[in-house]
Amino acid sequence: MPDNSQQFASDNYSGICPEAWEAMAEANQGHQRAYGDDEWTARAADHFRSLFETDCDVFFAFNGTAANSLALSALCQSYHSVICSETAHVETDECGAPEFFSNGSKLLTARTEQGKLTPASIREIALKRKDIHFPKPRVVTLTQATEVGTVYRPEEIQAISQTCEELGLNLHMDGARFSNACAFLGCTPAELTWKAGVDVLCFGGTKNGMAVGEAILFFNRDLAEDFDYRCKQAGQLASKMRYLSAPWVGILQDDAWLRYANHANACAQLLAKLVEDVPGVSLMFPVEANGVFLQMSEPAIAALTARGWRFYTFIGAGGARFMCSWDTDEARVRQLAADIRQVMNA
Amino acid sequence: MPDNSQQFASDNYSGICPEAWEAMAEANQGHQRAYGDDEWTARAADHFRSLFETDCDVFFAFNGTAANSLALSALCQSYHSVICSETAHVETDECGAPEFFSNGSKLLTARTEQGKLTPASIREIALKRKDIHFPKPRVVTLTQATEVGTVYRPEEIQAISQTCEELGLNLHMDGARFSNACAFLGCTPAELTWKAGVDVLCFGGTKNGMAVGEAILFFNRDLAEDFDYRCKQAGQLASKMRYLSAPWVGILQDDAWLRYANHANACAQLLAKLVEDVPGVSLMFPVEANGVFLQMSEPAIAALTARGWRFYTFIGAGGARFMCSWDTDEARVRQLAADIRQVMNA
Amino acid sequence: MPDNSQQFASDNYSGICPEAWEAMAEANQGHQRAYGDDEWTARAADHFRSLFETDCDVFFAFNGTAANSLALSALCQSYHSVICSETAHVETDECGAPEFFSNGSKLLTARTEQGKLTPASIREIALKRKDIHFPKPRVVTLTQATEVGTVYRPEEIQAISQTCEELGLNLHMDGARFSNACAFLGCTPAELTWKAGVDVLCFGGTKNGMAVGEAILFFNRDLAEDFDYRCKQAGQLASKMRYLSAPWVGILQDDAWLRYANHANACAQLLAKLVEDVPGVSLMFPVEANGVFLQMSEPAIAALTARGWRFYTFIGAGGARFMCSWDTDEARVRQLAADIRQVMNA
Amino acid sequence: MPDNSQQFASDNYSGICPEAWEAMAEANQGHQRAYGDDEWTARAADHFRSLFETDCDVFFAFNGTAANSLALSALCQSYHSVICSETAHVETDECGAPEFFSNGSKLLTARTEQGKLTPASIREIALKRKDIHFPKPRVVTLTQATEVGTVYRPEEIQAISQTCEELGLNLHMDGARFSNACAFLGCTPAELTWKAGVDVLCFGGTKNGMAVGEAILFFNRDLAEDFDYRCKQAGQLASKMRYLSAPWVGILQDDAWLRYANHANACAQLLAKLVEDVPGVSLMFPVEANGVFLQMSEPAIAALTARGWRFYTFIGAGGARFMCSWDTDEARVRQLAADIRQVMNA
Repeated sequence: MPDNSQQFASDNYSGICPEAWEAMAEANQGHQRAYGDDEWTARAADHFRSLFETDCDVFFAFNGTAANSLALSALCQSYHSVICSETAHVETDECGAPEFFSNGSKLLTARTEQGKLTPASIREIALKRKDIHFPKPRVVTLTQATEVGTVYRPEEIQAISQTCEELGLNLHMDGARFSNACAFLGCTPAELTWKAGVDVLCFGGTKNGMAVGEAILFFNRDLAEDFDYRCKQAGQLASKMRYLSAPWVGILQDDAWLRYANHANACAQLLAKLVEDVPGVSLMFPVEANGVFLQMSEPAIAALTARGWRFYTFIGAGGARFMCSWDTDEARVRQLAADIRQVMNA
Repeated sequence: MPDNSQQFASDNYSGICPEAWEAMAEANQGHQRAYGDDEWTARAADHFRSLFETDCDVFFAFNGTAANSLALSALCQSYHSVICSETAHVETDECGAPEFFSNGSKLLTARTEQGKLTPASIREIALKRKDIHFPKPRVVTLTQATEVGTVYRPEEIQAISQTCEELGLNLHMDGARFSNACAFLGCTPAELTWKAGVDVLCFGGTKNGMAVGEAILFFNRDLAEDFDYRCKQAGQLASKMRYLSAPWVGILQDDAWLRYANHANACAQLLAKLVEDVPGVSLMFPVEANGVFLQMSEPAIAALTARGWRFYTFIGAGGARFMCSWDTDEARVRQLAADIRQVMNA
Repeated sequence: MPDNSQQFASDNYSGICPEAWEAMAEANQGHQRAYGDDEWTARAADHFRSLFETDCDVFFAFNGTAANSLALSALCQSYHSVICSETAHVETDECGAPEFFSNGSKLLTARTEQGKLTPASIREIALKRKDIHFPKPRVVTLTQATEVGTVYRPEEIQAISQTCEELGLNLHMDGARFSNACAFLGCTPAELTWKAGVDVLCFGGTKNGMAVGEAILFFNRDLAEDFDYRCKQAGQLASKMRYLSAPWVGILQDDAWLRYANHANACAQLLAKLVEDVPGVSLMFPVEANGVFLQMSEPAIAALTARGWRFYTFIGAGGARFMCSWDTDEARVRQLAADIRQVMNA
Repeated sequence: MPDNSQQFASDNYSGICPEAWEAMAEANQGHQRAYGDDEWTARAADHFRSLFETDCDVFFAFNGTAANSLALSALCQSYHSVICSETAHVETDECGAPEFFSNGSKLLTARTEQGKLTPASIREIALKRKDIHFPKPRVVTLTQATEVGTVYRPEEIQAISQTCEELGLNLHMDGARFSNACAFLGCTPAELTWKAGVDVLCFGGTKNGMAVGEAILFFNRDLAEDFDYRCKQAGQLASKMRYLSAPWVGILQDDAWLRYANHANACAQLLAKLVEDVPGVSLMFPVEANGVFLQMSEPAIAALTARGWRFYTFIGAGGARFMCSWDTDEARVRQLAADIRQVMNA
């Protein structure tokens, strides 16, 4: 029934990791207060504060669409705008959710270098229009790791946050794959967020071994005022919250989150290494997180698909994305690499 | 750790039932396509179509707040209004979610008899204003079972749907406790919904043994146009959808949903029976579903709380709500009844 | 063509007063910068600051629906609520505009005494619910003069604003008939607004002799941040703004606003006086502004209508509202009074 | 006081034309029913139906921001998208109003040829994404005349409407300068709208001699269902509606709308002709409506500004826009042309 050939399609095709599962099982005992007044939710929030070494405000939402959209809508009003990269998930794959949650905030796309915004590209967009006939820029959102598998360095984030401060912009981080960024850089979560000037982080659980649930961390706690009401009104307050929070306890308490991110990243590195000398194959972006973007020939892509492999090709002609996840099987990586070699040689 | 004295506070204090849990465990194998393109979601939808004996459109949302608000927003525009009972959950306990999802639809509260709307009370509100300075009524929403534990009979629903048809209103049913209504009446789900004229049902899973997840069933399929986009934009499309749908397979496939509802209802009946002769205690509403609403003295309520029992008292002075759930322990019911007797005698 | 029998239906049935008209004519010379960067808009804003004896922020909107809804949406978020009277225009006659502009803020109606909110009634609503399942109260809106023709005294407003401060609520005033309140009390505009603790006033021009246009005055200037963007996005920024602002110059510069309000009030007083001894007729509310609410017999109302008089009867069985305006003709008042006497005697 | 050097900045810098003014003066007699139930509004609507030779539904809004945003929001839901040109006013100059009124509909910009969308560019955007993670295209909006002064021919509109029909898209026309398009082509309004497949037209009055007010014409009347409620809720229903509708009667009844548009167009043609042989000056777009877009040197632009001329330069380096209006003075056109010649020769 489970289809292994889908292992590289998306990291959200994977299941629940054992640590998350066991925490859910443990949480599934008797009755507990609803809506987050339970002990598991308190424990998960404390884990986050400990992991991030700061007294941040912690909220839970069901998925990344909502977590990011809610956070953005807390950082601006409907007549403000949000600066994001051209490839940002909030722009390309959320069906207008940020606009919906904010009641109309416009997303402004800025140029990127290897999927990353820069102070210059932010400044260009932020200063382009300064009249009331265009939504006033108020937020910058970074995706860490980016949608093309690259990772912002702490000093890059710092430079961006300085630009933000100068221009009166709040700084949001979409951390659907934040774990993979931490793993790649060997940095602490604090170094990649509040120490570098990030106001709010949406920390993704789903792509790193959970069933549902993202955490929203406000380092700038003023911005979290009444955010619990916002979550409730937007249909993001779970009654049986323990099933969203307990898995976080499970993956945070013994660093499973980082172990799995390291594993996924390592699988991506392995795949990249195994195909680096295949004639006609080239990396579209440096492999830093858990995704490998290969430029291949169109016939090779078709042949690979014919062999049953599933992967996304939305990156442009001849571009193929292979995502590794917490449970990717190294043997399957080698098999995929071998097949890539074969179809390119054909 | 689990606190048994909280067993009567709310049916969402309960955990995940074994059937739902096992289905999740079974679903937790390998990789599966995301966003509902998986086999479990297809199976769950088929189970609903089979159970309801009709080819309805089936969607899944994370919780009842969202399910009901999304459904209502699909049935009207922002300048329309929704007729609901004074005690409707959408009016009293959703923090303005229906208004938010619909971008401003006003809820108009109508009088009820034992928590139930009537054709007369709907007509009164629907015909009160017919000018453009007031939002045009377009939807009626019923809660089945109601927030005060009563249940609409099929003929009551039919009478209401006829009124709706006559007045150009769509008919929505909030079925957070739909299972309990079916169990009480011994009716089929079809008899209580589309056969009686209901356009859309939100069937609650959370209060009947699931972790998260409500099903939205459109019997009037025209109203479901592009509803999948609506769910996505509103942050209600789960990437790992199988964990929302598999539990439904678990509780639908061998009628666990009905068995548990029967159990919860029976516990409520037992409690009512055990206290019916206690001097000073009276039922505020007939016990039909899984809730018991008792009129008691204020000191008795305080004494009960002092003994560690948890329950809601939002119904007015001296009113206490005791909710039974799928896992309520009969022994605890007897213990609660005994304590009620004691505190009332004191 | 103009129908004099409609003179008492509503004060917005009246036309443009000479002072407003002449200012428009004067403004209609050559080209002027658009969107409020013109000299007339600057002059009008200065007139307001002078009249209110304070350096408030001044904006212009096309009508009262928008002015009040925009102001309210600036004072709260979608998950907040607005406390208003049961008869407040924003609740009863704006087709859900406040909910639309705010993306879902709920209006909570409080009890009134002669159409006026009190500290006690505000407190009752504000403190009723304090959980995240219900929208958090954040604003109180008063209508001055009220929809039933009564007027808040400065000390009443002060008492309310103290309650607001205590409870963390912003205070908004719907001043569709603010002129009439000033005229009745003989108070300065400052005494009835910022000196009494009002944060924002929507000062109505339409009902006092203008074609379109209301002014929004922020005495609490922090609340006006980016309000110009809000107006623009919501379709309330006139390109040829001078035609909204010049009439204000016209009616403010020599106190025409107050003269006309005095006239309208005097007509209402006259009508009340002329019918006070008519058997079977009684005042439903004290006559303080420009409206007279009479309790009459149903047949008398029908007879009056048959004689061609137009007036509203939305106040309940046997209730009739007669509105006077800036151009109400005293002779017509006497004629109406005579007809009332006759139909009641019949 | 009036600054003639601003005559070419924007056509909304101009005042009210005599025909509109006189109609307002005539309408300013006595009392009239409010909210559009007056005779002037009925007459204006009839004039439109007569002019367009069809029984369309007619509504009035205060300005173009609102008219276009309301119309678009009637043609799609929040999870749909609107295809527009890169230079469309709704995209570049409405501060996110379409997103606000629709509660989140995304604007998708398509390539243009001389400011005009084509079937091919529409098709490219409409078919780019067909998954629920991106807003479903549902509307195409054309600006006639375009923001760069070009005009869609009837056959171009027909070709687009055929593409729309094929792809399930509604067709909206932003006619802020619709008069100028009619004047240029010598076509009837019907030929440029419903006969060519346009569903809804926003017909601009402000830029053609009115104070405030745009008309919204639904040729596809099914799409107008409850549109009056939509206008009211969004703060676009004028109480003294006669002052919005009477000016329309004024400019429609003896074809002043067309006469003025012809004049403005002729001024633009004159300006273009007078500078066509100036070395270093070139037309950026063909002059078809009332705007002239000149490519000049940056120093020349600076010199022109220094001489007191006001005009927009948002079109890119060295680009200058000169707008003519209903009251543009031919002598001033010649003076401007002479100054352009001088500064370019310097």
